[in-house]
Amino acid sequence: MTGTLYGVGVGPGDPDLITLKAVRVLGAVPVIAYPATQNGESLARHVAQPHLVPGRIEIAFTIDITRPHADNEARYDAAAERIARELTAGRDVAALCEGDPLLYGSFVYLAERLARFPIVVIPGVSSVMAAAAVSHRPLATGTDPLIVIPASLPEDTLTRHLTEARAVALIKVGRHFAKAKRALAAAGLRDGATVASRVGFADERVAPLTSIGEESIPYFSVILARRPS
Amino acid sequence: MTGTLYGVGVGPGDPDLITLKAVRVLGAVPVIAYPATQNGESLARHVAQPHLVPGRIEIAFTIDITRPHADNEARYDAAAERIARELTAGRDVAALCEGDPLLYGSFVYLAERLARFPIVVIPGVSSVMAAAAVSHRPLATGTDPLIVIPASLPEDTLTRHLTEARAVALIKVGRHFAKAKRALAAAGLRDGATVASRVGFADERVAPLTSIGEESIPYFSVILARRPS
Repeated sequence: MTGTLYGVGVGPGDPDLITLKAVRVLGAVPVIAYPATQNGESLARHVAQPHLVPGRIEIAFTIDITRPHADNEARYDAAAERIARELTAGRDVAALCEGDPLLYGSFVYLAERLARFPIVVIPGVSSVMAAAAVSHRPLATGTDPLIVIPASLPEDTLTRHLTEARAVALIKVGRHFAKAKRALAAAGLRDGATVASRVGFADERVAPLTSIGEESIPYFSVILARRPS
Repeated sequence: MTGTLYGVGVGPGDPDLITLKAVRVLGAVPVIAYPATQNGESLARHVAQPHLVPGRIEIAFTIDITRPHADNEARYDAAAERIARELTAGRDVAALCEGDPLLYGSFVYLAERLARFPIVVIPGVSSVMAAAAVSHRPLATGTDPLIVIPASLPEDTLTRHLTEARAVALIKVGRHFAKAKRALAAAGLRDGATVASRVGFADERVAPLTSIGEESIPYFSVILARRPS
């Protein structure tokens, strides 16, 4: 009997925005795995902390989220191999995921390497929803499509998507802020847009896009914009 | 001192996919409000049930979710007026929302009518995330934009959005299924698409789009599709 791999969405960072189902899984699994920064920090691990069982095994793996996926392939290979050993030994493993595991999550890269094992995904609250909540603005209403766009796309691609869009969430903004601002302006979406950075943390900031002068903002920032009807 | 209006996302339907924060608010507020169908059914009320305080006041209001928003305006007016009386009397009110309050939620229509009161939004897991979880497929990865599209849009508008798209979640499919299928086919996204209906319920169904012959499927259905890279 092999173990089950759980992809556990722990939500956007606020420890109270985890689901009852995620709490239940974390309180039962003997092994957790999570991506950590080069400094050993892990937001997902921090949120999970109060719910973990004593004596659990922890597998931390380092991913550089600011770099293209190809640069991290070998790290995912190694993490998946380590997790596979636990699953093969019959132990369930919870892979902790910030936000939702299947929305731009690193869990997808683990799951494709571990598809031979049983996999269960626990969905989570995404940072896009959390950004809207603190910004006091709708994400989308009625028949408006909502487009979620990684800000790392080239400026012309961003502008093309934004020009068609009625409701927008630009994610992973970070050092792409100046470019994103130009693309939003070109698409007629700059005025009225809101920037939400590091939602749920002590240094959370929510401000109108036009009030922010910096060239670069935190990686975990979301820009929300809607086209007036 | 007026009360606070809480927009509480209770998640997609599975009672365990509610957040700790939502549970805490539900266990503290003296008044709850929720949209109900003409039959008096309310998914959000059902999910909230185990967490409510004894002796609470309940405000149920009837919304016909299958009709355009304009047909429901007067009902939102009446519901907001009823809620305003409680807030004015100093009582906090939790408006229960399926999924996330700000993603195509009726909460937006209450909040715009009650903007004079303090408002706090508790984000929730959306049915889009829940559909991906049971379908075992990523919503979006890497730099692919994700577009969430209400299926009630006209066929040519759907086709235009889909033709540009790399990752798609078509929502509120219901009686728009045949049209959505044609638009997906025209955009080259039909093969490999998955339909998830009534996720978290006894009659949940997850199946390849091409395997479903009906003209119409449940309103709470999501179609997920991605363009192969």
